[in-house]
Amino acid sequence: MIIIMRPDSTDSDIEGVLERLDDRGYGHHISRGEQRTIIGAIGAPDGEKDLIAGQFSVLPGVERVVPILKSYKLISREHHPRPTPVMIGGAKVGGGHLAVVAGPCSVESRQQMVQTARAVKEAGACALRGGAFKPRTSPYSFQGLGEEGLEYLIAAREATGLPVVTEIMDVRHAEKVAQVADCIQIGARNMQNYDLLKECGRLGKPVMLKRGFASTIEEWLKAAEYIASAGMLDIILCERGIRTFETGTRFTMDLGAIALARRETFLPLVADPSHATGVASLVPPLALAAVAAGVDGLLIEVPPRPDEALSDGPQSLTPAAFSELMKTIRRVAEAVGSEV
Amino acid sequence: MIIIMRPDSTDSDIEGVLERLDDRGYGHHISRGEQRTIIGAIGAPDGEKDLIAGQFSVLPGVERVVPILKSYKLISREHHPRPTPVMIGGAKVGGGHLAVVAGPCSVESRQQMVQTARAVKEAGACALRGGAFKPRTSPYSFQGLGEEGLEYLIAAREATGLPVVTEIMDVRHAEKVAQVADCIQIGARNMQNYDLLKECGRLGKPVMLKRGFASTIEEWLKAAEYIASAGMLDIILCERGIRTFETGTRFTMDLGAIALARRETFLPLVADPSHATGVASLVPPLALAAVAAGVDGLLIEVPPRPDEALSDGPQSLTPAAFSELMKTIRRVAEAVGSEV
Amino acid sequence: MIIIMRPDSTDSDIEGVLERLDDRGYGHHISRGEQRTIIGAIGAPDGEKDLIAGQFSVLPGVERVVPILKSYKLISREHHPRPTPVMIGGAKVGGGHLAVVAGPCSVESRQQMVQTARAVKEAGACALRGGAFKPRTSPYSFQGLGEEGLEYLIAAREATGLPVVTEIMDVRHAEKVAQVADCIQIGARNMQNYDLLKECGRLGKPVMLKRGFASTIEEWLKAAEYIASAGMLDIILCERGIRTFETGTRFTMDLGAIALARRETFLPLVADPSHATGVASLVPPLALAAVAAGVDGLLIEVPPRPDEALSDGPQSLTPAAFSELMKTIRRVAEAVGSEV
Amino acid sequence: MIIIMRPDSTDSDIEGVLERLDDRGYGHHISRGEQRTIIGAIGAPDGEKDLIAGQFSVLPGVERVVPILKSYKLISREHHPRPTPVMIGGAKVGGGHLAVVAGPCSVESRQQMVQTARAVKEAGACALRGGAFKPRTSPYSFQGLGEEGLEYLIAAREATGLPVVTEIMDVRHAEKVAQVADCIQIGARNMQNYDLLKECGRLGKPVMLKRGFASTIEEWLKAAEYIASAGMLDIILCERGIRTFETGTRFTMDLGAIALARRETFLPLVADPSHATGVASLVPPLALAAVAAGVDGLLIEVPPRPDEALSDGPQSLTPAAFSELMKTIRRVAEAVGSEV
Repeated sequence: MIIIMRPDSTDSDIEGVLERLDDRGYGHHISRGEQRTIIGAIGAPDGEKDLIAGQFSVLPGVERVVPILKSYKLISREHHPRPTPVMIGGAKVGGGHLAVVAGPCSVESRQQMVQTARAVKEAGACALRGGAFKPRTSPYSFQGLGEEGLEYLIAAREATGLPVVTEIMDVRHAEKVAQVADCIQIGARNMQNYDLLKECGRLGKPVMLKRGFASTIEEWLKAAEYIASAGMLDIILCERGIRTFETGTRFTMDLGAIALARRETFLPLVADPSHATGVASLVPPLALAAVAAGVDGLLIEVPPRPDEALSDGPQSLTPAAFSELMKTIRRVAEAVGSEV
Repeated sequence: MIIIMRPDSTDSDIEGVLERLDDRGYGHHISRGEQRTIIGAIGAPDGEKDLIAGQFSVLPGVERVVPILKSYKLISREHHPRPTPVMIGGAKVGGGHLAVVAGPCSVESRQQMVQTARAVKEAGACALRGGAFKPRTSPYSFQGLGEEGLEYLIAAREATGLPVVTEIMDVRHAEKVAQVADCIQIGARNMQNYDLLKECGRLGKPVMLKRGFASTIEEWLKAAEYIASAGMLDIILCERGIRTFETGTRFTMDLGAIALARRETFLPLVADPSHATGVASLVPPLALAAVAAGVDGLLIEVPPRPDEALSDGPQSLTPAAFSELMKTIRRVAEAVGSEV
Repeated sequence: MIIIMRPDSTDSDIEGVLERLDDRGYGHHISRGEQRTIIGAIGAPDGEKDLIAGQFSVLPGVERVVPILKSYKLISREHHPRPTPVMIGGAKVGGGHLAVVAGPCSVESRQQMVQTARAVKEAGACALRGGAFKPRTSPYSFQGLGEEGLEYLIAAREATGLPVVTEIMDVRHAEKVAQVADCIQIGARNMQNYDLLKECGRLGKPVMLKRGFASTIEEWLKAAEYIASAGMLDIILCERGIRTFETGTRFTMDLGAIALARRETFLPLVADPSHATGVASLVPPLALAAVAAGVDGLLIEVPPRPDEALSDGPQSLTPAAFSELMKTIRRVAEAVGSEV
Repeated sequence: MIIIMRPDSTDSDIEGVLERLDDRGYGHHISRGEQRTIIGAIGAPDGEKDLIAGQFSVLPGVERVVPILKSYKLISREHHPRPTPVMIGGAKVGGGHLAVVAGPCSVESRQQMVQTARAVKEAGACALRGGAFKPRTSPYSFQGLGEEGLEYLIAAREATGLPVVTEIMDVRHAEKVAQVADCIQIGARNMQNYDLLKECGRLGKPVMLKRGFASTIEEWLKAAEYIASAGMLDIILCERGIRTFETGTRFTMDLGAIALARRETFLPLVADPSHATGVASLVPPLALAAVAAGVDGLLIEVPPRPDEALSDGPQSLTPAAFSELMKTIRRVAEAVGSEV
C-alpha cells in the first residue's frame, strides 16, 4: 500500500499516518517529492487489504491510497505458476485441450435431454449442459423443472456417457445438485452471492464460475478466491458477456478479459458466446473468436428446436448448425495450437 | 407484442407467423406497409412474455419482436394508481414523509450500535441501519458478526426506540433476520438472487430492495414483482448507484431512475448516497440532490469513527457532519413540499 | 510517478528502470518490500506525463506505473484555490449566483427566438440558449439554420437584453460564432475535438464546455485545460448526462461528477437536465436535484411548442411549465444558500 | 413508425394522433387490443425519422413510439445486398482478402517511418499506418508532426510501395491529407464531428471510419451514412474498442458489433486490437480473435522500439513480435476461409 499525501498536507498529518501505520504493525518508507510526499507501507498484514486502504484514505492530509498487492492468492499465478487443466468427469478442460460443452438452456423433458445429448456428442461436444434450476428476470417466466430436471440430466448422461454441467442457485439445493453434477455452475447473477460461493467450495465437485455481467476481472478472480478458500481449487472461469451501453447485442463478449485473466491465474478460462450475444447468428463468429483468443473451452446452447425452447430460444443453434460450427472450431483450434 | 417482418420476408413466412400465433391462442392484425409488414398479436396470454417474444423472433422472415405490455403487474401503477407509503416499525416512508435511515455499514459492537443509534436519533433519523451479515468482495475481508450482530441491533432498538433495517444474504438466515428486523434489506448483489427474493416475500416483514448496480430500471421492478408475487407488497425501492465507465466515484447515482420508476410503480423510492459515491465529502451534495428529486427517504452511513470502521470507512459521515447535513436536508425537503 | 516491479523482476530489471529514469532527468527512491520492489520517480519534467508513464510500463520487470500528479494545471485548484464566477454578458455564473440559461434546442425562426426569449426572461432566465449549427446523428435530420440562425439570436438579444449562448461545431465558423455569442458552447460530441478546443481558446469569449457523454471527469478537465492553455480561463463546465447501460432515460445525469470536479477546479459547474434525461417530465426533478447538489447554473430547453420543435421535442418544457419550475428552483436554491 | 397509446388514453387522444398523422401525409392502421391501442403510421416521408418520432411521442395519451425503418440507406444491405471490398491504393480490403495495416501510432521521423514500413511489409502487411496529426487527451502531450509527418509518410510509401492510411482531425487540413493519404482515417473521437464527416465524403479518397468508443452500432452506421451522403461509398468501418466499466484493459473490443454490422451493411469491417486493449501482450490474442470472427482487415501498431515511441508505447508490438503474429494470423485466416 502506498499513501499519497495532498500537496497541502502538514507535518502533523504525515505524523498521524506514520503513527497509525505503526499501530497496525507496518513498517514504512517516506519519499518527499517537490509536489507530493509519498509513504510506502511495508509488510502488510494478511487479509482485509481493501478495508485497511479505506481506513487510511480518510486520515487528514491523505490524497489517495494505492494498493500494491492483489486481493487473491490461492488462485493466482504467484501461488501456482502454470495453467492447470480441470476435469469435468472424463473431459479435460485446458492443458491444450479445448472442451466444448453443449446443450439446451433449460432441461425441459427426458426425451429432449437424451436426444440433445446424442446430437451434441456426435458433433464433438465432450460434456452436456442444461439447467434444472433457472434464474429468470420475471417471476412469471418458466423457472426450471428443479429436481425432476436433475433426473433427466442423469438419464442423458447414462445414455451417452457425457458428463453434465448444471447450475446451482440456492444453497438449500447444494447437496442434491452436487450428487448429480460433474461440474457445478454458478451463474452470472450469483457471482457475488458469497454464501453460495462458500457452500460450493465445500461440495467436492469442480465449479464453473460465470463472470457477473457487470463485474470487473478483479472481482471475478476474488469470487473464485472465495471458492478456493473454502477448499475447492478445480475452478473453471467462464466469460459470458458484460453489460455495456450497446443494445444491438444482449451483452458484449469481453475476450480481452480472458487474455488478461490468463496472466493472473492458473485456472482454465472458457467462453459462452450464446449468452454473450443473445442471437443465434452471432454465436458462430464469436465462438470462433474465443477459440482463436485461446480459451480452454466453450459453452454453447443447442436445443432440439430453438423456436420451441422454453427459454433463451433466440440465442440457440440447431443441432445441424452446431455440427457445422464444430468443423470450423476444429480448424481454428488447430491453427492456434490447441485440439478439440 | 408486435412482430416486424424483414423486407425480404415471403408470404409463406407471414403465414408461418400467423399459424404460430393461432396455435398459441392469439388473435392478430396485419399492416402491410410499403417497406415492412407488421403483425400485431392480440390478447396475449398471461406470463412468460419475454419467452414468447423470443420464440417468435427466431421464426423465418421475422426482423424483430417489440413487446408492448410490461412484465410487472402487482407493483405497477396500472394495478394500483397512487403512491403508497410503507411503514418501517413506526416510521413512515413516503406519502409526503421523508424518512432518513442512518447507521454504520456493519454492526461491530454493542456499544457502537447503541451509541450510533442515539446520535442519529438525536440528529433526526427515524430508523437505524446496520449489517450483521455483510457481502464483501474478498473472502479475507470482515464478513460481519452474524447472529451476534442481530443482538446488538435489538439492543440499539431497545435503547432508542428506533426501528431497524438490516440485510439478509442467505435464505438459511431468513427466519432469524425476520424475527429481528423491522425491514429486511436485500442488497444490490442479491437483487437477482431469485430464491432469496421469493423467500423474503413470505416473511411478513417489509422489504427494502436495493437496485443491482448494473440492473436496468425494468429489471429492478421485475425483481420487486418477485417479492410481490410471493405475498409482500410493502416494498421500498432503493437506488444506490450504478456502475459506469466513470471511476472517480465508486458508482454513479442515477436520480433519473427514481423519477422514472415513480411513474411506473406506487412503491416508495429511496436513495443511498453513501454507497453511490463511496466518498464522505460527496455524500451531502448527493443526499440533498436526492431529496430535491423527490425521494421518499435516504439511507446514510454514520459510524461513530469513520477511520476505524471495519468496513466502508471512506464513505461514512461523522455523527457531527450528519447532524449538520440533516439541517439542510430539512430545508430542501420543505422547498419541494415534503417533510422529514 | 511510482513504478511497481513484478514479484519476479530481477536486479538487472531494476537497474534498467533506474538508468532510464536517470536518462530522463528524474531522481528516484527505492523501497524493497517483501513482495514487491517499488521505485518512486522524483522531479517529473513538465508535460507528457501519460506518455512517459507508458514508456516505463513496457520496460522489463515492470508490473505497473502509477501516475501521481494531475495532467491539468491552469484550471486546477492547486493553481488557483477559490471557485471563481464567469460572466456571460451581464449574467453571473457562480459565486453564489445560480444562472438559468433557457431556450430552444435549435433556432428555427426569428419569431420563435424572440417569443421564447421573452417568455424565459419573464420566468427568470438570465441568458438565452439556441443552436444555429446543430450536431445530428443522422445526415437526414434538420442540421440547423447556420448563419441565418445567428441573426435570429441577435434579434432575440436585442429584443430582451438577454445574452446568448450558442454552439460551435466547425473551426471554420469560429469567427462568425464568436462575433455573435456572449458565450460559445462546445457540445458533448466535440469535447475531444482538440483543434476546435484550441481555436475556441483564442476567440476572447467565455466558453461553455459540455462533458463528452462517455468522458471521464479527468478527460473533461483535460479538455478544459486545452482551452485554458490557448489563453481563455473563463470556462464553464457543463454536465449533460453520461451514457450507461440504462436505456429508460436517454443518458444518466452524473451529479457526483459535479461534486467531484468542484474539488479539483475553480471553474463554475452547471448541469443540463434536458439532454441528460431526454424526457420532459423528468427535467424538473433533475433540475432541482442539480440545484441542491450545488451547481452554479442550469441549461434548460424551452421551445414555444414542444410538439412542433424541429429537434429534441420530447425533452422540452413548455414555457408555462418552465415558469412553474423556476419557482421551485428558487426555493431549493435558497435552501442551499444560493440565489437565482 | 408504430405509436403505442397509454392504457388510460382517451378517444380524443387517439383522434389527435390520427389528425397529426394526416397533416404529415401519413396513412394509418389502428389496432385496438384489450390493454393498449396501437397505431401504425404508413408511408413515412423521407428523412428526419427520429425527429418525427420525437414529435409524436409528446402528444397527449402516447406511451411510446417505435421506429420501424433504419435511419441509414446508402450504406445498407437493403440498398446494396452484397459485401463489397474497398481498395487502399493497390491493397484490397474485403472480398475474402484480409488486409493487415501496420505501423506506428505517430509519425516521428523519416528514418522511423521508412524502417517500420520495410519491417511490416516484409512481415506481410499490405498498407502502412501512422498519424501525422494526433488527438491527445492532454494539451501537454506530443501532438504529432503535422505536415512534416505527411512528408515522411510519402517517403515511406516511395521506399516500399505500401499505400498509407493516416488520420485527419481538422477540416482545414482536408486537402493536404487527401493529397497524401491512400485512405483517410477518421478517429474515434471525431466519429460524430459531422462537419469533418461531410468534408471527408467530398475528397475522393476512401475513408476508414473508426467507431466512437461510446457509440452504438447504429450511430456508427449513421456516421458512415454522412460520408456516403456526401458522395463517398468506399468506406471501411473500424471497431477499436468501446468504453465499459472494465478498467483492466483500456477499452473492450466488441467483436459482436462486427458480426452484427456485417448483417446491416455491405461495407468492409476491420478491427484495431492495439487501441482496444492498450497492452501489447493482449494484441495477439485479440488480433487472432478478430480474424476468426471474420473481419476484413486489422490495424496493428508496430513502432521500431515500443519503449521509446512518443505515443501509445505500451500497446505496440515489436517488429519481431508482429512478424511472429502474422504467421498465426495466416493460419487462422485460412481456417475461416479467408486469405492474407
